[in-house]
Amino acid sequence: MHENHAGKRIEVGILGATGMVGQQFMRFLAGHPWFEVTWVGASDRSAGRKYREAANWRLPEDAPCTVADLTVQGCKPGNAPQLIFSAMDSSVATEIELEFAKAGHFVVSNSKNYRMEPDVPLLVPEINPGHLQLLARQKNERGWSGQIVTNPNCSTVVLSMALAPLKVFGIASVVVTTMQAISGAGYPGVASMDITNNVIPFIGEEEEKMERETQKILGELENGEIQRLAAGISAHCNRVPVVNGHTITVSVRFASKPAESDVMSVLESFSGIPQARQLPSAPPRPILYLPECDRPQPRRDAERDRGMAVSIGRLRSCPVMDYKFVVLGHNTIRGAAGAAVLNAELIYSEGLLD
Amino acid sequence: MHENHAGKRIEVGILGATGMVGQQFMRFLAGHPWFEVTWVGASDRSAGRKYREAANWRLPEDAPCTVADLTVQGCKPGNAPQLIFSAMDSSVATEIELEFAKAGHFVVSNSKNYRMEPDVPLLVPEINPGHLQLLARQKNERGWSGQIVTNPNCSTVVLSMALAPLKVFGIASVVVTTMQAISGAGYPGVASMDITNNVIPFIGEEEEKMERETQKILGELENGEIQRLAAGISAHCNRVPVVNGHTITVSVRFASKPAESDVMSVLESFSGIPQARQLPSAPPRPILYLPECDRPQPRRDAERDRGMAVSIGRLRSCPVMDYKFVVLGHNTIRGAAGAAVLNAELIYSEGLLD
Amino acid sequence: MHENHAGKRIEVGILGATGMVGQQFMRFLAGHPWFEVTWVGASDRSAGRKYREAANWRLPEDAPCTVADLTVQGCKPGNAPQLIFSAMDSSVATEIELEFAKAGHFVVSNSKNYRMEPDVPLLVPEINPGHLQLLARQKNERGWSGQIVTNPNCSTVVLSMALAPLKVFGIASVVVTTMQAISGAGYPGVASMDITNNVIPFIGEEEEKMERETQKILGELENGEIQRLAAGISAHCNRVPVVNGHTITVSVRFASKPAESDVMSVLESFSGIPQARQLPSAPPRPILYLPECDRPQPRRDAERDRGMAVSIGRLRSCPVMDYKFVVLGHNTIRGAAGAAVLNAELIYSEGLLD
Amino acid sequence: MHENHAGKRIEVGILGATGMVGQQFMRFLAGHPWFEVTWVGASDRSAGRKYREAANWRLPEDAPCTVADLTVQGCKPGNAPQLIFSAMDSSVATEIELEFAKAGHFVVSNSKNYRMEPDVPLLVPEINPGHLQLLARQKNERGWSGQIVTNPNCSTVVLSMALAPLKVFGIASVVVTTMQAISGAGYPGVASMDITNNVIPFIGEEEEKMERETQKILGELENGEIQRLAAGISAHCNRVPVVNGHTITVSVRFASKPAESDVMSVLESFSGIPQARQLPSAPPRPILYLPECDRPQPRRDAERDRGMAVSIGRLRSCPVMDYKFVVLGHNTIRGAAGAAVLNAELIYSEGLLD
Repeated sequence: MHENHAGKRIEVGILGATGMVGQQFMRFLAGHPWFEVTWVGASDRSAGRKYREAANWRLPEDAPCTVADLTVQGCKPGNAPQLIFSAMDSSVATEIELEFAKAGHFVVSNSKNYRMEPDVPLLVPEINPGHLQLLARQKNERGWSGQIVTNPNCSTVVLSMALAPLKVFGIASVVVTTMQAISGAGYPGVASMDITNNVIPFIGEEEEKMERETQKILGELENGEIQRLAAGISAHCNRVPVVNGHTITVSVRFASKPAESDVMSVLESFSGIPQARQLPSAPPRPILYLPECDRPQPRRDAERDRGMAVSIGRLRSCPVMDYKFVVLGHNTIRGAAGAAVLNAELIYSEGLLD
Repeated sequence: MHENHAGKRIEVGILGATGMVGQQFMRFLAGHPWFEVTWVGASDRSAGRKYREAANWRLPEDAPCTVADLTVQGCKPGNAPQLIFSAMDSSVATEIELEFAKAGHFVVSNSKNYRMEPDVPLLVPEINPGHLQLLARQKNERGWSGQIVTNPNCSTVVLSMALAPLKVFGIASVVVTTMQAISGAGYPGVASMDITNNVIPFIGEEEEKMERETQKILGELENGEIQRLAAGISAHCNRVPVVNGHTITVSVRFASKPAESDVMSVLESFSGIPQARQLPSAPPRPILYLPECDRPQPRRDAERDRGMAVSIGRLRSCPVMDYKFVVLGHNTIRGAAGAAVLNAELIYSEGLLD
Repeated sequence: MHENHAGKRIEVGILGATGMVGQQFMRFLAGHPWFEVTWVGASDRSAGRKYREAANWRLPEDAPCTVADLTVQGCKPGNAPQLIFSAMDSSVATEIELEFAKAGHFVVSNSKNYRMEPDVPLLVPEINPGHLQLLARQKNERGWSGQIVTNPNCSTVVLSMALAPLKVFGIASVVVTTMQAISGAGYPGVASMDITNNVIPFIGEEEEKMERETQKILGELENGEIQRLAAGISAHCNRVPVVNGHTITVSVRFASKPAESDVMSVLESFSGIPQARQLPSAPPRPILYLPECDRPQPRRDAERDRGMAVSIGRLRSCPVMDYKFVVLGHNTIRGAAGAAVLNAELIYSEGLLD
Repeated sequence: MHENHAGKRIEVGILGATGMVGQQFMRFLAGHPWFEVTWVGASDRSAGRKYREAANWRLPEDAPCTVADLTVQGCKPGNAPQLIFSAMDSSVATEIELEFAKAGHFVVSNSKNYRMEPDVPLLVPEINPGHLQLLARQKNERGWSGQIVTNPNCSTVVLSMALAPLKVFGIASVVVTTMQAISGAGYPGVASMDITNNVIPFIGEEEEKMERETQKILGELENGEIQRLAAGISAHCNRVPVVNGHTITVSVRFASKPAESDVMSVLESFSGIPQARQLPSAPPRPILYLPECDRPQPRRDAERDRGMAVSIGRLRSCPVMDYKFVVLGHNTIRGAAGAAVLNAELIYSEGLLD
């Protein structure tokens, strides 16, 4: 681990800073003990304007005053700091993130574009910190002077957190149904005429992402290659009229059915490097098991530990698979901005930023 | 089949008429071509008052004018008509329905109390009209001069309608997640402080009902005994902030995987006795398959065919089970009042009312 | 009045047919006894496609089958029928409606563009049918072979209906606050991220429209000139998370304070030409006074009389003005599509279509 | 002012601690620098149980761990601390608060029961701290060894905060419409079947409270008697589907119309004793004027300054009164628990607790 962080501030930039995910980065990073946002990049339309004017701020209250007066830059490497969080829209992220990586930046991306590349870590610090070893291969094969690390799709993080401790039992297959919050769709995102007093039983590409990203995250790195988890994963993805927090019902079958107390035990004791190193954004316990019969609930539980803890409840036997339960996480924090920031904290603590 | 209904009105009574389900009966029966509500029973507190005053009307607009001036009776057989719909709360239904059955009434009940009794039909007219043969056994064993027939729990009807046509392929196991409307919980029912901007991942007893009632509905009658469907059924039941319409994601495994076109075909061509006899409340097609990628949706599709059709969409292969899809039905119509009325129509058309 | 309509169908066209208001016209006109939609116009992007494909249908269920297979035309007069309903977006309505009026069409428009023109009727058939006399002046001054008649903004219709019967007491001033449904904003309209679990206390231009349109509607025609109602009107307009139905609180001061029973009496007995002539879309009573202490409510009352009746409740003395009450109307029916259709029915019954 | 608080903790008790308002006290007082909850009283049904078991916790996350293990007491003075916050239901508050006041406790009550008593302060610390002088009269006339101080109804606080700075212009009359959050109605409170996708244009007694309480709060104390503000106040109160935050539209007429810049100026510069003394719960600025055209909004602005600041926006001329604007406040914080706590802080800082 990197020597202790001795109070110096690390400058960071945000690509796509004016969009909804960019705003979430701003909010999550406000008051961060290590990282200071000193550079914001957005489309040419916004470039040259103050952040407070360029961003159509959609989150509660106002843009943090520490960034409100930054002048928005175009999405060109130029004078940006080494560490870059990318909140780029996927329609443009491929090119722009590439450009920053080539120019020597460490790109910690929330975009989907590079997630499934075999040499790009799809990182959840509590689960697969070892996947950072892919960076050596990435550097080698791509010839970039910089790097790209990604975090998963918002519902995938939440599911992966719940499944990671269960790997010890040999996960055979998983059937999940999501009830996803509207904030996951950006802004303007979901039309109120579509979701008010309604459920939309479809989110484009979401089921595919949950299925393949989860397999990669939970996979093992062998000889520089990720061996995906060999478990069938089936996702039913739905949008519900909730602002924040993705709720997921999970039925899981194991190689052989463990005792319920053992399942409970691995969930409750789950912990990882972020907790061991007390990374600034790490929740004390990444998984909170809630004993009440009707929890977790998004409005009541999504904000636990600043939105970085995932809540699980209702563990019980499944008449078809082995066990079933409910897992909930904050989609824009643990599922997006907070996920990327925790990734950057791990990367820094590993000494990978110089 | 009974001879054609020649325009005479059949008087019916409603037990529990002032409650939420009772109100739904009133609304659904308004203008019914066969049945005329002439008797309303409720708790002693309401007895003696006009229906319009006794019922705290919670549905749109007003109580139908044809029933608004009826005088509420206590829940005693006495002068009630032969055909009785029961919308009794389960806390009192056991005794009261028994009393009416003993007194010679044909009780068509929406309450859960007698659903799982081995000699009581748990009837969905498109699916298991033959289960009415249990009535002979019921009469024989119970010694009642009347009868009790039940309809399933609201989410169970919707699921059963989707599974019924699939029985031909040999259903091996089913994993479902429900997103249930608040109207399913009666009045006052779910507190707005619990469900606004929220999901509640628990509904008391609902999962057990869905599992066991579905097995009974889809079971075969052999020697006067229902052989429950020998398929594992696992339900995750959730409340979502939607007024009407239960949405259910379904993953199903068969004895052997049929072709997708065959699955589609049996869904789209599903039809039953209510359609053949054109019972007044029968939808022309009990299952509507919606081809759009994001349907069915409760606010847009629950009301199809007066709320009596069930809508299915998104049929596709399941990476874990064989197929998965979404099914939606109107919980207070197809799942409650309309279900009972259709049951009564079948019963009448069978000549079982004299 | 025009001789009785003897069963022949009047062909009508819809400008802007694929948009949200256009869809509402389709839905409202389905099964209309006089008018048959035979022509649908939309942007060039949609022209040439079947209506069912060109329209991204956002209302419940599906586009009516009678129009689903119409081929969408560009917004050029050409072969369109004489009677045209305009659901054009205001950004293009000025030119296109002008072109149709010049080409001899009778344009019954829901757009705001011509509403405040001094020679264009801003028509509410129960209130100001005499304003149709402006058409002579319009024809004279404009030299069009066709005509344009408009209906008011959605919240304005509802308010005007409540104020019209009160004119007899001499309206001095009015303070209103609206709680407006999301369907008033079209599609995609209000972002769910803006309105879920929220109130937006601003709707662009809405307050100005309510103030000036109400004065015109309630004005008197003198010498071919509308003398606007000389009453101060102050509107606070808000968006609330409700799908359909605008609720408005109203405080009103009169020249001198009438008795409450007199106010009630004129509200309850309000009726107009549409009722006298039994126009197809006329509600039996245009104003329903609801005596319950907590009505009207949008979800329960907006659909009364097919959405064409306006509901009023809670009439009581105002400690600052003279009286206060609540009025509710269906914004996309009485406030848009239904308003225009009722206008066309009045126009036809006046013999103004040839 | 009382000498500086030197770090000693003041023990406080909560009457009605298990109810919804009681829970809000618990949450608001967690981590309070002066007050420590050491005693919780509730109904006999709860007495003797741990707080975590007796309270059906309905707020986000869990009951604060500092109080979760307190044993609930019956509502008898006995061993309760001197300072008592009352969250009693109004059905029982009259007797119980009286008993505590007689027994020497300083009762800081959120209940309505004593608010309008002529010798009981209806206190908003920024507005009428001088009303605490009524306590001398209260002591004198009642002969209690303790005291009762009240805070206003939730919507009244918000309105009063907006009107207080405007008193300098001579308030002549005020017309307001509220859009109130569901959390104002306690638990279970508003049924979801009533408020989902709906507006309820009625809240029992609320309009009367807003009218008379506002007049008392803004009144002047003269010779031990509050001279109520001689301004007509008319309130239209509505419930909307929002969890937290009451939004109020306000039209106000003055003795003579001031310049808009002067109105803005007094709003923005409003400050009081809580700010001067930096009381722990005092917001830096009690009124925040938001310049955006569509603010304040409950979901985005109610939590500003821990829910203790009131937000105002859209100040503009009113065509009927003089000015109009929108004001928003957090109903369960500034409008209930936070209001009472700030009252207690003022009382303590005045040296009225011994």
